[in-house]
Amino acid sequence: MLGYFGPEGTFTHQALLKLEPNAAAKPYPSVPLALAAARAGEVEASVVPIENSVEGGVSATLDYLAASEPPLHIIREIVIEVSFDLAVRPGTTLGDVRRVITHPHAAAQVRGWLAANLPNAELIERGSTAAAAEEVANPDSTFDAAVCAPVAREMYGLEALAHNINDNDGAVTRFVLVARADSGTSARPTRTGHDKTTFVAYMRADHSGALLEILQQLAVRGVNLCRIESRPTKTTLGSYCFSIDAEGHLDDARVAGALQGLKRICADVVFLGSYPRADEIVPNIPHWASEGSYAASKTWLDSLG
Amino acid sequence: MLGYFGPEGTFTHQALLKLEPNAAAKPYPSVPLALAAARAGEVEASVVPIENSVEGGVSATLDYLAASEPPLHIIREIVIEVSFDLAVRPGTTLGDVRRVITHPHAAAQVRGWLAANLPNAELIERGSTAAAAEEVANPDSTFDAAVCAPVAREMYGLEALAHNINDNDGAVTRFVLVARADSGTSARPTRTGHDKTTFVAYMRADHSGALLEILQQLAVRGVNLCRIESRPTKTTLGSYCFSIDAEGHLDDARVAGALQGLKRICADVVFLGSYPRADEIVPNIPHWASEGSYAASKTWLDSLG
Amino acid sequence: MLGYFGPEGTFTHQALLKLEPNAAAKPYPSVPLALAAARAGEVEASVVPIENSVEGGVSATLDYLAASEPPLHIIREIVIEVSFDLAVRPGTTLGDVRRVITHPHAAAQVRGWLAANLPNAELIERGSTAAAAEEVANPDSTFDAAVCAPVAREMYGLEALAHNINDNDGAVTRFVLVARADSGTSARPTRTGHDKTTFVAYMRADHSGALLEILQQLAVRGVNLCRIESRPTKTTLGSYCFSIDAEGHLDDARVAGALQGLKRICADVVFLGSYPRADEIVPNIPHWASEGSYAASKTWLDSLG
Amino acid sequence: MLGYFGPEGTFTHQALLKLEPNAAAKPYPSVPLALAAARAGEVEASVVPIENSVEGGVSATLDYLAASEPPLHIIREIVIEVSFDLAVRPGTTLGDVRRVITHPHAAAQVRGWLAANLPNAELIERGSTAAAAEEVANPDSTFDAAVCAPVAREMYGLEALAHNINDNDGAVTRFVLVARADSGTSARPTRTGHDKTTFVAYMRADHSGALLEILQQLAVRGVNLCRIESRPTKTTLGSYCFSIDAEGHLDDARVAGALQGLKRICADVVFLGSYPRADEIVPNIPHWASEGSYAASKTWLDSLG
Repeated sequence: MLGYFGPEGTFTHQALLKLEPNAAAKPYPSVPLALAAARAGEVEASVVPIENSVEGGVSATLDYLAASEPPLHIIREIVIEVSFDLAVRPGTTLGDVRRVITHPHAAAQVRGWLAANLPNAELIERGSTAAAAEEVANPDSTFDAAVCAPVAREMYGLEALAHNINDNDGAVTRFVLVARADSGTSARPTRTGHDKTTFVAYMRADHSGALLEILQQLAVRGVNLCRIESRPTKTTLGSYCFSIDAEGHLDDARVAGALQGLKRICADVVFLGSYPRADEIVPNIPHWASEGSYAASKTWLDSLG
Repeated sequence: MLGYFGPEGTFTHQALLKLEPNAAAKPYPSVPLALAAARAGEVEASVVPIENSVEGGVSATLDYLAASEPPLHIIREIVIEVSFDLAVRPGTTLGDVRRVITHPHAAAQVRGWLAANLPNAELIERGSTAAAAEEVANPDSTFDAAVCAPVAREMYGLEALAHNINDNDGAVTRFVLVARADSGTSARPTRTGHDKTTFVAYMRADHSGALLEILQQLAVRGVNLCRIESRPTKTTLGSYCFSIDAEGHLDDARVAGALQGLKRICADVVFLGSYPRADEIVPNIPHWASEGSYAASKTWLDSLG
Repeated sequence: MLGYFGPEGTFTHQALLKLEPNAAAKPYPSVPLALAAARAGEVEASVVPIENSVEGGVSATLDYLAASEPPLHIIREIVIEVSFDLAVRPGTTLGDVRRVITHPHAAAQVRGWLAANLPNAELIERGSTAAAAEEVANPDSTFDAAVCAPVAREMYGLEALAHNINDNDGAVTRFVLVARADSGTSARPTRTGHDKTTFVAYMRADHSGALLEILQQLAVRGVNLCRIESRPTKTTLGSYCFSIDAEGHLDDARVAGALQGLKRICADVVFLGSYPRADEIVPNIPHWASEGSYAASKTWLDSLG
Repeated sequence: MLGYFGPEGTFTHQALLKLEPNAAAKPYPSVPLALAAARAGEVEASVVPIENSVEGGVSATLDYLAASEPPLHIIREIVIEVSFDLAVRPGTTLGDVRRVITHPHAAAQVRGWLAANLPNAELIERGSTAAAAEEVANPDSTFDAAVCAPVAREMYGLEALAHNINDNDGAVTRFVLVARADSGTSARPTRTGHDKTTFVAYMRADHSGALLEILQQLAVRGVNLCRIESRPTKTTLGSYCFSIDAEGHLDDARVAGALQGLKRICADVVFLGSYPRADEIVPNIPHWASEGSYAASKTWLDSLG
């Protein structure tokens, strides 16, 4: 059984179906609840969105992944194209639309289209795009249209007044499959050569220049970044941690070295998994950061002893 | 006339009243619209939230501040303690509360309290906490409670079932007053010695290590960071720009030098203003980054010519 | 009148003849004296060796150039191939050679040849290779052979038992023409696009990591190094300054910026001149460190003011 | 049997006597020969000078230590105060002194005194200060005075016209005891907590910025430098390697990590020994570079696997 940020018909649901077409799936009404279910062992793993090409990192995922015990690890990722319909009950025309409902991330991605085509409509936010479609499907609803995925529109018997109303063509969202770190080696992704490692680095208090030092620990070992985002540590303004995706696998010597270096200089590092990249791109590693170079330098050091 | 992210009773409204108690004020239903009003000259300036100690940067503000022409500059900032009430129509008891409505950022800050005290209540999101209070004030509303500021609760005649239900004590939100860059020197904040400079640095495409280089341009000139956040450039996953607050004023030699250095190595830099820090903390500048040191090095260089 | 580290027939003399074939020339018995003559105005400028491809920097030149007032500037450089003869009085055979005399730098460059061909000969050092040749030319000398330049051998009527006895083929020495900084603009080399700038950076006391900071000041402005050598500051062991040649001219914005940055972070910087490279190689400057990029960033900054 | 850079009476001889008062000692006429004797196994170890507080690194030692096979390691160091006498045959007065003989390094340290007190005397260089004293002791010598150590003056029956004629008070020279790397573990210095590690780092050809990268490999592991000197690689001008003393022992995790990092990014690294500091100063290691921090980061990493 896999959990996901539901209800049925969300982009997260689509991501789950692509990752595991045959798995039993259970929706949760929010990202924290979907992650809590994995943590509690209610489900084997959960699918949640982590990053959107338009909106950026998904705060709830970034914060709740690292937040508590037992530790969770990302074991797979998938990238889905995000395209929105303006979905209405059959018979509704564009001229009828007064109140539009959708999820805040979706709202952010269609703001231009709505301003141009429905300048006077009111926009109300709901917990998911699928929940918005469900609301509009209710004949008594006070909402006239939902911004949602085509799959959610179909699921609730709605019609599309417009397809692909995103302001940015080619918007994508990245989803991750997350399991308990102690859920057994069968789930642990082995090194493929095109891997990604996710972790959160917490800076020591009031240490200006800490981010520079974090990046230097990675750079001197030839570890490149795919993503870096600051997140508040929820204490005072200006107190940050950094959520980072780096190229490579925990079993790569350069990644293991960098993580240890970060563990030493940071207040804490929370490891969130090494897993294959969805795009299967093999990283361009400098020759001096290759496994061979690390092995040779170890042999040399041992010869001095 | 000043614009703000309304309606009346939001924390943004409170921020505006503290900044300019006597100004005429006009609410806008979203951050982008409040910024657009300042850009269009409908208002002299607008107040918007930019950063929350729990939720992090306010995406809409970070993205729309830098997004289009004519340029906007931050001219003041203020930090407001954020405290939420659970507001109900008079007579409602905790046992009656089935459906709670609030803004997504507020929802994120009271999630623990709601889970502990109203585990079965449904949480629905609305565009602002004040709009949530307005909704609940309607006797026909299907919502039983709003999570909102005390000022909004009072404005709409609601009662508090609980005060200060935030999960994190001492949560604060930072607001900025934003005006057109060409709005006249009367609005331009002069150097006070306790200033902050906000800008966005866009990296050149596919240049790993670019963030490290950005930080080095700042570090070698003795410019410290107050805040750094990555934002997607809305093209592909992993394409980022960085929204940065640095210590100091455009008229400080070290800041001017750092901005020029960034302008050279980055694809672009969008300057968003130098303005006094709300906390009036005078930064600890290394002696070699002081105005005196910059002036002396210039004099020395000229003597070689 | 030009001074040089003599006597006649030294490689330094050759360098002077190539630089200024028609100038009147006055030899000085040591580098410090040749530099002191330029400082005192006894000569317009002096030629001294600064760097050898085998022995490294010439300590006396590095130390005395920066050491006292009034300041001296390098105004030209030249690179001379260094090739040594084993020079003897006519009639002497290899079997006769018991005592060989030469300058310490020359000795270091022919050590292998002497060990292989004259394993039992004693090697004595003298102040210059030309002085060694002069000594051997004296029929009463207790020395049998000199290691010296072909020109010195000829000047003193000696014969070569062997030519080009250097252990390293292609050894070269770099010489500089040095004048008082206040000797008039006629002597000041203008920017050619293939220039070099020499200076000495003194670290602040007991500041570990200072060299790293020096290099970062250069790197963030796109200034490459041609040469860097540590020199003791003559106080305690481990107290160093750095003698540096950087690519570019004082009139290049990136060089001017780097020098100012160094002046701020170092205990002192002594500028020793910008002058054309002997090899006329145009440096490969990153686009963001070009004059155009510096000018554009300045224009941009001014537009914000 | 220990070798040393002789003859008897040199400062190197004094260093040997302090290090090993009871050892049999054999002088060699040059640093390369003293090192070659240790390499060939003619002596158990040799004492040579490596660094002078006035003149800087001793080129011959720096170059020949790393130059060939089998490898040599430094196993001890000692620092000796350097003080020179002006030594003459009994009866000679200052007014009689026309020709002065000494070693080039000594010459450099008494230049000021000679210029002030014997402005017209000729200065001739000899292979060692002790050899200079021996020369002057010869009644037939054409030299009137030697600049040498008090011990050499006494050894050859000379009188001092002046004591401590150094231009820099408190000048010291550092000497090292050097043995074959394979000479048995009895000679291998164990970790004391106040150690120094010496090595040479060779840069890859034409890689500008290489020194910056070398220093960063050390800095990110919290390894401080005691000494860094560039040495030409004897191929072309501007091709350098770096001779480095770092704080700490090969058995310190931070040093082992830094050496491996350098081995990976450099063309080559030649390890020249870890040995106790003569001054017994315990280095100030950042907490994150301590043995405990390294061990903890390793334990943490293993827990993730």
